Amino acid sequence: MFNSRQKSKRPLQRQPLARPTRTRADSSRLANYSARYPDATNENQYLYEYERKTKDCFDKIENVLREISAIQHESDFINSAQSLAKSQLGFVLPENLLNDCWIKSLDIGQLYAWCVFETFRYFSSEFFIQQPLVRESETEFQNFIQSCGFHTIDVSPCADGRLAHVISYVLRLPYKAVRRKSYAGAMFDVEDSLQKWVKTEMLRHREGKPNLASDNTRYLKIAVYHFSSIKPEHEGCAAHGSNVQIAAAAAKEKLLNFRQGVENSFCCGASIDLLLIGLDTDTDSIRIHMPDAEGNMDIDSYVDTMALYQHASSMRQNADEKAILDYLEKLPGVESDTASQNGMRKLITRLIHGNLQQVEYVKRYHGGNYQDIGHQERFIGMGIGFEEIQLRNLTYFSYLKTVEEGAKDLDVGIKIFTGLNIKRGLPVPVIIRYDYHGLVPGARARAESRCHQLEAALRQRYSDLADQGYIHTLLMVRDCNSDTKAEVIGCSVSTSNEALH
Amino acid sequence: MFNSRQKSKRPLQRQPLARPTRTRADSSRLANYSARYPDATNENQYLYEYERKTKDCFDKIENVLREISAIQHESDFINSAQSLAKSQLGFVLPENLLNDCWIKSLDIGQLYAWCVFETFRYFSSEFFIQQPLVRESETEFQNFIQSCGFHTIDVSPCADGRLAHVISYVLRLPYKAVRRKSYAGAMFDVEDSLQKWVKTEMLRHREGKPNLASDNTRYLKIAVYHFSSIKPEHEGCAAHGSNVQIAAAAAKEKLLNFRQGVENSFCCGASIDLLLIGLDTDTDSIRIHMPDAEGNMDIDSYVDTMALYQHASSMRQNADEKAILDYLEKLPGVESDTASQNGMRKLITRLIHGNLQQVEYVKRYHGGNYQDIGHQERFIGMGIGFEEIQLRNLTYFSYLKTVEEGAKDLDVGIKIFTGLNIKRGLPVPVIIRYDYHGLVPGARARAESRCHQLEAALRQRYSDLADQGYIHTLLMVRDCNSDTKAEVIGCSVSTSNEALH
Repeated sequence: MFNSRQKSKRPLQRQPLARPTRTRADSSRLANYSARYPDATNENQYLYEYERKTKDCFDKIENVLREISAIQHESDFINSAQSLAKSQLGFVLPENLLNDCWIKSLDIGQLYAWCVFETFRYFSSEFFIQQPLVRESETEFQNFIQSCGFHTIDVSPCADGRLAHVISYVLRLPYKAVRRKSYAGAMFDVEDSLQKWVKTEMLRHREGKPNLASDNTRYLKIAVYHFSSIKPEHEGCAAHGSNVQIAAAAAKEKLLNFRQGVENSFCCGASIDLLLIGLDTDTDSIRIHMPDAEGNMDIDSYVDTMALYQHASSMRQNADEKAILDYLEKLPGVESDTASQNGMRKLITRLIHGNLQQVEYVKRYHGGNYQDIGHQERFIGMGIGFEEIQLRNLTYFSYLKTVEEGAKDLDVGIKIFTGLNIKRGLPVPVIIRYDYHGLVPGARARAESRCHQLEAALRQRYSDLADQGYIHTLLMVRDCNSDTKAEVIGCSVSTSNEALH
Repeated sequence: MFNSRQKSKRPLQRQPLARPTRTRADSSRLANYSARYPDATNENQYLYEYERKTKDCFDKIENVLREISAIQHESDFINSAQSLAKSQLGFVLPENLLNDCWIKSLDIGQLYAWCVFETFRYFSSEFFIQQPLVRESETEFQNFIQSCGFHTIDVSPCADGRLAHVISYVLRLPYKAVRRKSYAGAMFDVEDSLQKWVKTEMLRHREGKPNLASDNTRYLKIAVYHFSSIKPEHEGCAAHGSNVQIAAAAAKEKLLNFRQGVENSFCCGASIDLLLIGLDTDTDSIRIHMPDAEGNMDIDSYVDTMALYQHASSMRQNADEKAILDYLEKLPGVESDTASQNGMRKLITRLIHGNLQQVEYVKRYHGGNYQDIGHQERFIGMGIGFEEIQLRNLTYFSYLKTVEEGAKDLDVGIKIFTGLNIKRGLPVPVIIRYDYHGLVPGARARAESRCHQLEAALRQRYSDLADQGYIHTLLMVRDCNSDTKAEVIGCSVSTSNEALH
């Protein structure tokens, strides 16, 4: 019944988004979460608080700037504005952007971009220093996946901002222990994945990390496509014309190509395991296309967690992994009982278990489906990195080394922000990021020059918008060999008080 | 004496380039070389014939087009032109480029670009099918380098066309068994080299290729910088302002960074060996900076093969490897006698031996130094591949995945060709190439779309030149998992008779 061949028809619960009461000015900004997932019941509340507080910080910017704009011709404007900003946003504004408003109007565009960047900078630092979303140790998770027969989990979701929370929220996996590379339409780069496979095998053979090459475990590649159950024709995956069948088939083909590439390029029985997942971006429920004994997946056949949630209360209420596993084992076509199939079922059980919590999350805190079923990203992120982005609809992300390669993805992002910002006169905040391996000499300097190169290429590609001041950029690098935060190396908003540094 | 700390002052022999007598029209074009290096004496003659015949094919183009231009208003022009082209160049011209010259002047620029492309296509096909420069089997060479304590030789010369023959001519190494990645100023990409190291180690551990990981051999990275002994201030490396000290120091630093990157990023004593070589592009003699027992290199201390050639006749005349090795062993600072130092000396002995043959080659066929000590490239090659380019000053080569990354290298190339071609009204022929791994599904389609992407980015970057018809492009892909030739997938010169396909 739940392994449906048709999209299940189910009544969707649409309630207005229950916004938390705003207490004081949230000047503490991102709260210092000390209690971490004390138990499953509180996990959703914890995650919700993190999501809401973070997004509130971004969402307050427009209101505060509206208030500041209204008082720009009053006496003592600068003091009033700074006091508003400090109390509402948690930081003061660059004085030079406020000084001359008696001569010309406030440059709200620059102020807006600066506030988004400053908010991101706080948010990003907090993420790396306080590690609010660290769930379990990497070792613990490694032990778990190895008990399922895997040594690496490599996920490629779509680059759409509505999938940015897929690891930490939708699947409830520890983000540090899972590789995530996002591409428009989940159309991941096969050659890039092959390189990762090569490096993984080298480390297993040479250094026994994460386990010995002689251990019988496999590399698992997961592709996550997406669709909209509420507005399937309009709010699905833009890269595939909002057609869920095409999106699923294309992701499946990429997976098969990657496996074939490994099998053809290397000897001694080299292969990988594959898993195809579809995400309903309205409800965060997922479709898992269970591989059969030969590893084949059928795009029309899947386990739908929303159907499980609605009909199998035991699984939902008791978070009962045993019930999920029993269910999976009784699915048609599950005759073979190999170790590898058992391991895959064990992993999928965990994914379903995690996702049922997320379906509950969306039901409890977002009335069953998100209010923002369409794009509502706050900024564009481009480059390599952004581990701290684990929240839905915060970032339109383009994973790219050059604008030339990522131009198609970036065009989509600029189009989205033309609708969200530019048509109202606000600029597009673009955060350019390049993570580097600090252990390699010169890597930091190369990452910095990459950032500048990306910025120049971005401004060249969208020169009309850039000339009108509609593109603002923040440049950051991060040493991914250490646990430090990302560092700002440049910003298009000129500030005299160097608040950014 | 030869291990000088100063550039040796030596009388340079400057004789006019002895051009071979042109016999018949060379309509057989690139001769079918059946005899391969029958003995050392004939090797130079063989290599010279290959170089001369190939370059002649390119150099005849201008003369033939001049003749054709002169008769464009005569009756029976098309037949006369085709007969000239066929007899002189070995192919007929696209009819549509000849048809309308009674209305408007012949478009010599298009004809020129087409002829360069067609000549390259013949040359490239011959290279892969007849394999004129295959010296010894890869296995034979692998055995040799393993006997020296190495399993991989990875060379990064400068991208300058005057170094394109460094593997097959200057060092006399088998091009198939040596990795070559060229970068302006020999400023190779450390991250790219690290990836190669990772893959090499993986294959050794996992598949025992080229040898078992337990074998005590090392990865050798060689950087080749260059200088001009005749016009040191003007014809040295443009990327380093023709300053040989800076060029050598920069290449050395890259090498050290690569080694440090390997050592820092991987455990269990991971390291590599390094070698720094300087090439005098006027005479093809080299400077080898001998690493000491700790692997340190001194940019001011080197073995100069020109000095060896001029003073140590036994080494030259008898091609006596024993004499070279004896010499190296007596150098100051060579006290330690570890297996690894012995291996490195054995390899360097072979490099010196090969290079002495090349110095002799330049003496015999080019009067001691090349006539074209400056740039005289015939086309720009950009992208990934070009194994067939093993000849000096034929190609300005930009190894790049995107124009965005390679823009600086490409700007230099366009500047060179502005001097060589555009100022006379001739276009720049640019051959865009993307090699792919045919074993990976979809790789060919991705390589094709890369070619088109590169072409678009090239035309955008140099839009003024492109709009005036000064940029012409040929697009090729090649499956580097097979021994097949490169295939043309597009060309900017419009031809009606589809001669290109």
